[in-house]
Amino acid sequence: MLTKEIKIRFEHCDPAGIVFYPHYFEFFNQMVEDFFDEQVRVSFQTMHEEWKLGVPLVHIESDFLKASRIGDVLSFSLQLSRIGTKSMDFYITAKMGEEERVKATLTLVCVSLGETLGSAPIPEEFIKRMESFKGA
Amino acid sequence: MLTKEIKIRFEHCDPAGIVFYPHYFEFFNQMVEDFFDEQVRVSFQTMHEEWKLGVPLVHIESDFLKASRIGDVLSFSLQLSRIGTKSMDFYITAKMGEEERVKATLTLVCVSLGETLGSAPIPEEFIKRMESFKGA
Amino acid sequence: MLTKEIKIRFEHCDPAGIVFYPHYFEFFNQMVEDFFDEQVRVSFQTMHEEWKLGVPLVHIESDFLKASRIGDVLSFSLQLSRIGTKSMDFYITAKMGEEERVKATLTLVCVSLGETLGSAPIPEEFIKRMESFKGA
Amino acid sequence: MLTKEIKIRFEHCDPAGIVFYPHYFEFFNQMVEDFFDEQVRVSFQTMHEEWKLGVPLVHIESDFLKASRIGDVLSFSLQLSRIGTKSMDFYITAKMGEEERVKATLTLVCVSLGETLGSAPIPEEFIKRMESFKGA
Repeated sequence: MLTKEIKIRFEHCDPAGIVFYPHYFEFFNQMVEDFFDEQVRVSFQTMHEEWKLGVPLVHIESDFLKASRIGDVLSFSLQLSRIGTKSMDFYITAKMGEEERVKATLTLVCVSLGETLGSAPIPEEFIKRMESFKGA
Repeated sequence: MLTKEIKIRFEHCDPAGIVFYPHYFEFFNQMVEDFFDEQVRVSFQTMHEEWKLGVPLVHIESDFLKASRIGDVLSFSLQLSRIGTKSMDFYITAKMGEEERVKATLTLVCVSLGETLGSAPIPEEFIKRMESFKGA
Repeated sequence: MLTKEIKIRFEHCDPAGIVFYPHYFEFFNQMVEDFFDEQVRVSFQTMHEEWKLGVPLVHIESDFLKASRIGDVLSFSLQLSRIGTKSMDFYITAKMGEEERVKATLTLVCVSLGETLGSAPIPEEFIKRMESFKGA
Repeated sequence: MLTKEIKIRFEHCDPAGIVFYPHYFEFFNQMVEDFFDEQVRVSFQTMHEEWKLGVPLVHIESDFLKASRIGDVLSFSLQLSRIGTKSMDFYITAKMGEEERVKATLTLVCVSLGETLGSAPIPEEFIKRMESFKGA
């Protein structure tokens, strides 16, 4: 499990004083970016430039259970719930103390960059490191 | 059905040259904002300031079927698929010509603004206009 | 002069109920993007992919004279105040009716894309169309 | 001087692979937010809710000297260059190692929140802490 604290800032909040929800998807993306950086040890930049691969989101389902406000420090955690040959699922939650604020399931697919963005097998090397994260 | 064209701009695209997906949730929010503005004839501002109500998102499920790129003009359409006493569901799709790019189901709940953001009945007046939109 | 109306939306406003100022720079960028699209008739995408050129901002100076709020429809106008061989200046204002809300001076430089992003001459073809816009 | 490291992420970069410049203004705003949080010990939320004050930006001048890319970790530093009775100036720079990437001068004005957002004296208590930061 990968965890990370994110502080809710002025810029994340709307006129009702709570997080404008599209920002949560930026936070989810940061979690996935950190997962590749730190666990798979392949940054998004390296993946794009050297592997010519990308991992776009194809499906997301998310629940917003409680509103968050400026100054809240949320603890995000990411789990890798499934690894397929060409796609993977993540489960992400955000808590404030014991209170769950947001949870989401994301499916990402591996694609070769270029005009068509066709699906591509996840490299063996990535899968090995993902497996070891999953079992950790 | 409410429809609206949104042009994909430079600012929406990521280093892979395709829409950075959190922007889609801003587009969904624009559709909902326009729905309240134009169909319910209550702007978000009026809802907040005069009715002391808000309609935060509590659940979303979304599929990203095909990538979109700078210069694409997407046709978004919003349908109201359910009206309850305190919540409602929307179905939103984005197409480029005949090609479906994105689709999403959103559940929004009516809350009274303030510290607790507790759920509140959707005002009769809103429901009437929503019903007439639904039947249109 | 290029003009464009931009409606201030929920997503642009902060907990104080006014436009969160970084959004103005997105609006400025939209004006510049439209200028290249419509006047120079070279989209940012074409400039990047076919000409291998970009026009990053190198200097900006901006005054925020009056706050704008949700629902305000601002009239943005862009003037090309200088064309050099490798750079250009724009003057952008945003008004609500007769009231000036924001004004900005931007300097953009033409660069060849790639690792170094070195400055490059603005193509003759672009300059010609820019001159005719300037004189219009 | 207040310093802070900010990592350039995928979400900050545009199709040319460099930081989309409006994000810099979010970073500037984070620096100012941290300054009030940590040095003046008055969060933006407290300032709004308890003091009924805000500190909107009224003028900014910024130079973008070198492009930044995904994975760059920029060191931002903020100096308070002037404190007036109703306004203040900040000087912010961002460096990657010894290389200066961005610099900016910002003028913020103290206003009472409400319909008119008229300028207001900066509270004595704030000024005292700002002075001690300035001299540090």
